[in-house]
Amino acid sequence: MIVEMQTGVDVQQVDGVVQRAKSLGFQVQLNLGTNKVVVAILGSNTGQVPTDTFAVLPGVESVTRIMKPYKLASREFKGEDSVVNVGSVQIGGERVVVMAGPCAVETEEQITEVAKAIKELGAAVLRGGAYKPRTSPFSFQGLEEVGLELLAKARKAFGIPVITEVVDPHDVELVTKSADILQVGARNMQNFALLTEVGKSKRPVLLKRGFSSTITEWLTAADYLLAEGNSQVILCERGIRTFEDSVRFSLDISSIPVVKRFSHLPLIVDPSHAAGHYSLVPAIARAAVAAGADGILIEVHPNPKEALVDGLQSLTISDFSRLMAELKAIAKSMGRYI
Amino acid sequence: MIVEMQTGVDVQQVDGVVQRAKSLGFQVQLNLGTNKVVVAILGSNTGQVPTDTFAVLPGVESVTRIMKPYKLASREFKGEDSVVNVGSVQIGGERVVVMAGPCAVETEEQITEVAKAIKELGAAVLRGGAYKPRTSPFSFQGLEEVGLELLAKARKAFGIPVITEVVDPHDVELVTKSADILQVGARNMQNFALLTEVGKSKRPVLLKRGFSSTITEWLTAADYLLAEGNSQVILCERGIRTFEDSVRFSLDISSIPVVKRFSHLPLIVDPSHAAGHYSLVPAIARAAVAAGADGILIEVHPNPKEALVDGLQSLTISDFSRLMAELKAIAKSMGRYI
Amino acid sequence: MIVEMQTGVDVQQVDGVVQRAKSLGFQVQLNLGTNKVVVAILGSNTGQVPTDTFAVLPGVESVTRIMKPYKLASREFKGEDSVVNVGSVQIGGERVVVMAGPCAVETEEQITEVAKAIKELGAAVLRGGAYKPRTSPFSFQGLEEVGLELLAKARKAFGIPVITEVVDPHDVELVTKSADILQVGARNMQNFALLTEVGKSKRPVLLKRGFSSTITEWLTAADYLLAEGNSQVILCERGIRTFEDSVRFSLDISSIPVVKRFSHLPLIVDPSHAAGHYSLVPAIARAAVAAGADGILIEVHPNPKEALVDGLQSLTISDFSRLMAELKAIAKSMGRYI
Amino acid sequence: MIVEMQTGVDVQQVDGVVQRAKSLGFQVQLNLGTNKVVVAILGSNTGQVPTDTFAVLPGVESVTRIMKPYKLASREFKGEDSVVNVGSVQIGGERVVVMAGPCAVETEEQITEVAKAIKELGAAVLRGGAYKPRTSPFSFQGLEEVGLELLAKARKAFGIPVITEVVDPHDVELVTKSADILQVGARNMQNFALLTEVGKSKRPVLLKRGFSSTITEWLTAADYLLAEGNSQVILCERGIRTFEDSVRFSLDISSIPVVKRFSHLPLIVDPSHAAGHYSLVPAIARAAVAAGADGILIEVHPNPKEALVDGLQSLTISDFSRLMAELKAIAKSMGRYI
Repeated sequence: MIVEMQTGVDVQQVDGVVQRAKSLGFQVQLNLGTNKVVVAILGSNTGQVPTDTFAVLPGVESVTRIMKPYKLASREFKGEDSVVNVGSVQIGGERVVVMAGPCAVETEEQITEVAKAIKELGAAVLRGGAYKPRTSPFSFQGLEEVGLELLAKARKAFGIPVITEVVDPHDVELVTKSADILQVGARNMQNFALLTEVGKSKRPVLLKRGFSSTITEWLTAADYLLAEGNSQVILCERGIRTFEDSVRFSLDISSIPVVKRFSHLPLIVDPSHAAGHYSLVPAIARAAVAAGADGILIEVHPNPKEALVDGLQSLTISDFSRLMAELKAIAKSMGRYI
Repeated sequence: MIVEMQTGVDVQQVDGVVQRAKSLGFQVQLNLGTNKVVVAILGSNTGQVPTDTFAVLPGVESVTRIMKPYKLASREFKGEDSVVNVGSVQIGGERVVVMAGPCAVETEEQITEVAKAIKELGAAVLRGGAYKPRTSPFSFQGLEEVGLELLAKARKAFGIPVITEVVDPHDVELVTKSADILQVGARNMQNFALLTEVGKSKRPVLLKRGFSSTITEWLTAADYLLAEGNSQVILCERGIRTFEDSVRFSLDISSIPVVKRFSHLPLIVDPSHAAGHYSLVPAIARAAVAAGADGILIEVHPNPKEALVDGLQSLTISDFSRLMAELKAIAKSMGRYI
Repeated sequence: MIVEMQTGVDVQQVDGVVQRAKSLGFQVQLNLGTNKVVVAILGSNTGQVPTDTFAVLPGVESVTRIMKPYKLASREFKGEDSVVNVGSVQIGGERVVVMAGPCAVETEEQITEVAKAIKELGAAVLRGGAYKPRTSPFSFQGLEEVGLELLAKARKAFGIPVITEVVDPHDVELVTKSADILQVGARNMQNFALLTEVGKSKRPVLLKRGFSSTITEWLTAADYLLAEGNSQVILCERGIRTFEDSVRFSLDISSIPVVKRFSHLPLIVDPSHAAGHYSLVPAIARAAVAAGADGILIEVHPNPKEALVDGLQSLTISDFSRLMAELKAIAKSMGRYI
Repeated sequence: MIVEMQTGVDVQQVDGVVQRAKSLGFQVQLNLGTNKVVVAILGSNTGQVPTDTFAVLPGVESVTRIMKPYKLASREFKGEDSVVNVGSVQIGGERVVVMAGPCAVETEEQITEVAKAIKELGAAVLRGGAYKPRTSPFSFQGLEEVGLELLAKARKAFGIPVITEVVDPHDVELVTKSADILQVGARNMQNFALLTEVGKSKRPVLLKRGFSSTITEWLTAADYLLAEGNSQVILCERGIRTFEDSVRFSLDISSIPVVKRFSHLPLIVDPSHAAGHYSLVPAIARAAVAAGADGILIEVHPNPKEALVDGLQSLTISDFSRLMAELKAIAKSMGRYI
């Protein structure tokens, strides 16, 4: 951590910074410029100390972090790529893993039809929402427990692992009975009560990036899960909020090489929630695979016109079939497969 | 709702839109331009219907909402300003209500010293956090139940109402025992499980704006509280995330006249979390009162240098005293008082 | 254009809107809902009328545009894809066009070495800046006329077309002597004096997206060029400003399918200025090709450590060689070539 | 400047950084942490050196600036507040200076009526656009030279100084004949060719903040003007682009205390372009004065319903009269006057 002192600072004020750093067990080095005193505070845990600890002291102009605030999710903590195992499916390995299905589980017929189709087309995981966090209280909120049962049935019938969202810390135990991967949604990325419970469950978990969270905040949220001893963490980029209004969210394609540089965790991409419109989904999905994502989480519905939630961003089964052919070609050109 | 059909649309596709609108009980009017068919869908509840309902239909180019998606929080639903009563304190009336105190309750001495000082200086409500949602799992998370007890003590000793944050739906009942106003934090603005429980409690609630939420989403989140029959809702603007990096969050000063135009709910402003630095807080607080906010939620700490959380944005008691004099002068020039 | 009247509007106010629309030559249709009067204003040029024309009238609540404000750049104006011809190079056709070279022209040795290398590796156009718009007045501003001469020499020596930026309307004529494609930089996307001059030159022009411009504003800026009779317009996405701070700019990958949907103009992508760091450039470049971009504008420097400008985002020649192999594989998997 | 070396860096790489710093005339201090080598580069001009100078070197992980990139605009360069004199009007002194008038000069009657009214109501400067940078080529572009003449007439008739925008570097000389203050618009904040010419003119200049520029970039753009020897620089905050869509731009109220902290230049606020709607302008104007702005630049039109440009954000003369009374009360409560 680098502490810049104000111009004309006095010796006592510099000493105040030095003493606080030493009291926290850090080493200190003074840099005396012609205009500025700069105090370097050194130690492997400086990233976990709030900058305010020093910024509040008299005579301090600014405090700059050198170490990242996250630790367990960082590549410095673990050099090699992590792979999450869900049954026989490996996420973060050579295979590009496609997770597909409807936004919300609606009926047994719907989820059965989708599960069958996406499995045949090469998807590795079935997605479907039972608890839906909706912006308006007047919208459909999901089938809840009935939805979980339908997912469990489809899992059994087609031998395909299931991912579904959990929204209340007190539902974690229930959801783990029907789901192989717990999804923490974008709006809950910093719901720390939920993260702690999901961490304790030790289940594979997919942590969506909050739509206004920096990558640093996202990896720090992953630390909440990892700190509970749950190493089965998958990250999911799903678009960030920007000024551009032609899409729901702007998919942050750069997050893929950035996360790969700074973290060992596998990363998949949700093109559906970013685009908000089915016609834009295939281009974004292809881009994600080309940029190095470990998988895709995508909405597929047998009849988007009748979908209760997010029909506009869902692919039909025939659209999905076409996209899978494109993705397989790109994965192959990258030395991977689907 | 306005449905723009694609150029060259056929009669059947237009009819599909008309039929869906009628099946939902809406009136329909066709607008036949030279290049475009535009279908107007009319009815007082069109705001609560997702635009996807029509956007997924064949031949549709775009769907534009005319009615807002929120209802109970809107000025069309209730024309006159709402006033929330907390004991003898009225929020949303002629008085500009100042809520002050430390970010986190730390010790009995700390909370007692602050409570005494801010009451004498004219604050109407004591703030203090017992449950702290922290970005990093390695940071201080609050005194929790012990913190609640210290707040209850201070409330009794100084006869001042208390506001504190609740983060888990299952803590609502417990927190209502010590707090007069429940605070829903910015990161939980769309934690719908929490909103529903807080709504059911019927307690006055302060709903902070998510730092990346539009005003429309914020008022729609307020509908979750109001839909449970809780009419005691106070809004709180606390800054939004932008590209500007000289502050933690950019306080959205325009939100004050915008909310006043579209909603009947009282609105207060938190300058501390927006600024992130004590030197910027007074200017933002003055601006909020001048723009017409109904109050201020502000961090005051007897010794910010030793604060466990957010010391850098806390005013000292003497800073706060100076600011109160400034705010009283501005309130007076506006025909209000503190 | 859709004009929503206020609740309780009177007949005269509605009539005011109708009369103004008719005076501009538009058709009008009234939609009388239970709560709202909505006036639809119809005609093929409504997109070019400012919404304020109606929004200022008494009794108007809101005005929503249905038609886009741009016209000549739109797919409705021209259905088939435009192809820009630069010598024998076609931009917007089957070939994915790579434009490569240093950020700034520095010396004859430098530009010669790069031109030779990138041509051999398959690039179709040489890039190099002679006029550099720099954030600080104390930074290197480019070689100016000397730089143009060095570009012209390299063009002749290697038979490769050249693209370079023009920053002052009064330099357009001079720059056209050395450059085959004029580049309008992101900071000048709404420098209308410059756009008008470049439009008049009739030279192929690459219009970079302003880093805070919506796609609609970008296509409207393209209309400035097209309205002067210059149909040789190439768009270039180069990243937008967001809150994310791990990159200089967030490349807006969704802009590719969005532009392809709404415009007939060719679109290329600059991964270098978006990323700001060479290690992130290849992933973004691959993503752009996979998403359907018609080309890549990329910085290559023989010795980035000694570059006078933007060395950190420049690829070395051997990095570029590796990337070209990757891009060729992806282009092939898409049915295109480089 | 702080250079963080990669973990496991070798001595030669550290030496490379040290040598480059020394070759630029800087002092260097090494900080050897347990995990990291951090090189501090010290000297009063480090702010003007691009971070890339070091970031490109082998073994470097990150480079962090301590000194600001701007110099002449900084409070470190000049401690006391600058005051700009325009005739007898002082900008940056005790008086809060109101600059008012129409967005565009339209007719002699219009500009005469406004000039008379705003002067009587206490405005100190007349604003009016002769050259209008418009988003669409199909919109009214201003009266140009005729507009300048009308402004010059009004100036003479009412003895009030005039501010108007200049958009082309080659018009600067012409515009200085009619205008007391040259305005550089938001879209031209980084039009360096224009800044250089305006700087050379030595005329008082109002530099609007680019709507996506950080405060640091804005002050660095001011350095372009100051570096040409023009010390008569006034800053103008006019709103930034964010995700919020209820206003045209979000006025950055925090910019006022931030600029006052880091710069000596006077700062005024344009509430009209930020709000985009007349009903929101008064609240923002009051907030700006309360936050400490040195003035207001505001649009007033005798008949906004007929305005050719931006009528929706213009106040009528009677609205303006009411607002002036409010602003005077707030200025007085702050110890200032209008």
